[in-house]
Amino acid sequence: MKRLALVTVAAAGLATALPAAAQFQKPEDAIKYRKAAMTVMANHFGRIAAMANGKAPFDATAAQGNADIVVMMSKLPFAGFVEGTASGETKAKPEIWSEPDKFKNATTRMQDEVVKLNAAARTGSLDQIKIAVGDVGKSCKACHDNYRKE
Amino acid sequence: MKRLALVTVAAAGLATALPAAAQFQKPEDAIKYRKAAMTVMANHFGRIAAMANGKAPFDATAAQGNADIVVMMSKLPFAGFVEGTASGETKAKPEIWSEPDKFKNATTRMQDEVVKLNAAARTGSLDQIKIAVGDVGKSCKACHDNYRKE
Repeated sequence: MKRLALVTVAAAGLATALPAAAQFQKPEDAIKYRKAAMTVMANHFGRIAAMANGKAPFDATAAQGNADIVVMMSKLPFAGFVEGTASGETKAKPEIWSEPDKFKNATTRMQDEVVKLNAAARTGSLDQIKIAVGDVGKSCKACHDNYRKE
Repeated sequence: MKRLALVTVAAAGLATALPAAAQFQKPEDAIKYRKAAMTVMANHFGRIAAMANGKAPFDATAAQGNADIVVMMSKLPFAGFVEGTASGETKAKPEIWSEPDKFKNATTRMQDEVVKLNAAARTGSLDQIKIAVGDVGKSCKACHDNYRKE
């Protein structure tokens, strides 16, 4: 557990270096922020996934650039899941706050998988990118299945 | 002009390396993306501005980390201003598309100013950060005054 906690802190980096609640003036600001960060992350992951799925031509340089963005974005949304933001314009399930360790594990898994995706993108091998895209996708789905309302 | 164009390309980086329209399936996807990127950028710039304005304690490491995020985010929104996205859930003014060179100059100015903010953050000098925050703020306002509806 200690090791996991350290990995989490390292992966989350700056975003958790400040008290999260202090970063947002109102609950709706936190909700808007985390959704925005997810939107940007999903878009850039989607561009790599499109290459992996043959829906876009493979461009190794673009895949690397997009993977860099995904890694940075992966650190951001979770500072927005502060207490008092379970209602409003959000699909967040209350389990995010009732089982915080499990939620953190799920987010850390995604953060670890996108680091692997970035490494795969740097090999320039579409086959390796395909595998990593699949693993990232599974980590997204696992967290959404448990912590996001339909 | 040629030099400016080169700076623009360098600053915009990956985001303009692909045909912009190809990155979004629907106009509303492009609008959602650019707004999300602006939201994330504004949040992290806001954290530095709060330090500059004395509303948050100065934390040099946090300022640097936030400035890194702002620089990356500054490259992203403009790929979302594709043709056919002047209406819908957007405050974008039609001048974005009728005077594209001026709009690009305005966005480039902001991108240049946030690079300077990042350099200022790296000095660890709050005084330098204050100056840079002011300049970034002016570049945001100039573009919003001309290209964003109230």
